[in-house]
Amino acid sequence: MAVCALCAPSAQDILWQDDFCRVVLLNDADYPAYCRVELLAHIKEMTDLPPQDRARTMKVVFAVEAAMREVIQPDKINLASLGNKTPHMHWHILPRFESDRHFPNSHWGEAVRDSGAQPLNTEVRERLQKVVIERVECALKN
Amino acid sequence: MAVCALCAPSAQDILWQDDFCRVVLLNDADYPAYCRVELLAHIKEMTDLPPQDRARTMKVVFAVEAAMREVIQPDKINLASLGNKTPHMHWHILPRFESDRHFPNSHWGEAVRDSGAQPLNTEVRERLQKVVIERVECALKN
Repeated sequence: MAVCALCAPSAQDILWQDDFCRVVLLNDADYPAYCRVELLAHIKEMTDLPPQDRARTMKVVFAVEAAMREVIQPDKINLASLGNKTPHMHWHILPRFESDRHFPNSHWGEAVRDSGAQPLNTEVRERLQKVVIERVECALKN
Repeated sequence: MAVCALCAPSAQDILWQDDFCRVVLLNDADYPAYCRVELLAHIKEMTDLPPQDRARTMKVVFAVEAAMREVIQPDKINLASLGNKTPHMHWHILPRFESDRHFPNSHWGEAVRDSGAQPLNTEVRERLQKVVIERVECALKN
């Protein structure tokens, strides 16, 4: 039986984590600020979680969204939990720009232009991490 | 200026609604139980809502997920809020089957087989609506 890629992840750029979930910067070539919120436990669907853990998950997702909006001002945020290939609960938090490779399509859909994306520079990455930490920790207190 | 398609929707198959949002059965040819939760107000991002309205939205989304799992037992649930083309908050709740047109890809991605989907028969549609109503109304009480 194959080991789940999110139960045994390879090296990750983790922006924040606790004993429930982690916020990972994917360092995607087309979408440099693309993050995932990954639960530590191997849970398949949101409704496999008790309601308070669903709420906890979404507080983290929305805190990451808020941090992205503050730091990189995208034109739109895309949120998704699919898991067809890796049925271990994770949320995609993807900042979109009208100039990005697939806009206005889904980034899983047809590309409509070359990507002009550049990796996040160190200063922006550090700022994103700082704001993610602040926003997540504040959200989890409320 | 174009009118927003979700502020002024054409005829919809509404399974449930209140003064905040509605649950719509899309009657999609490939995904017959595909539903959307659409906010009534023209809100662009989840973090444009106050936290209690984010939670209210997600309770409805998860209640629809639970109803789908009860009534049609999909292999996986896909949840997404993109809004690149229609920036009026709506959530896609999409039951996936390993035999469906795009599985394991996103349904926005490449099709990998012909769709064998059939429209929901009346009995299943009525049962789905009944369970959606029960699950949503219960979730909103808690």
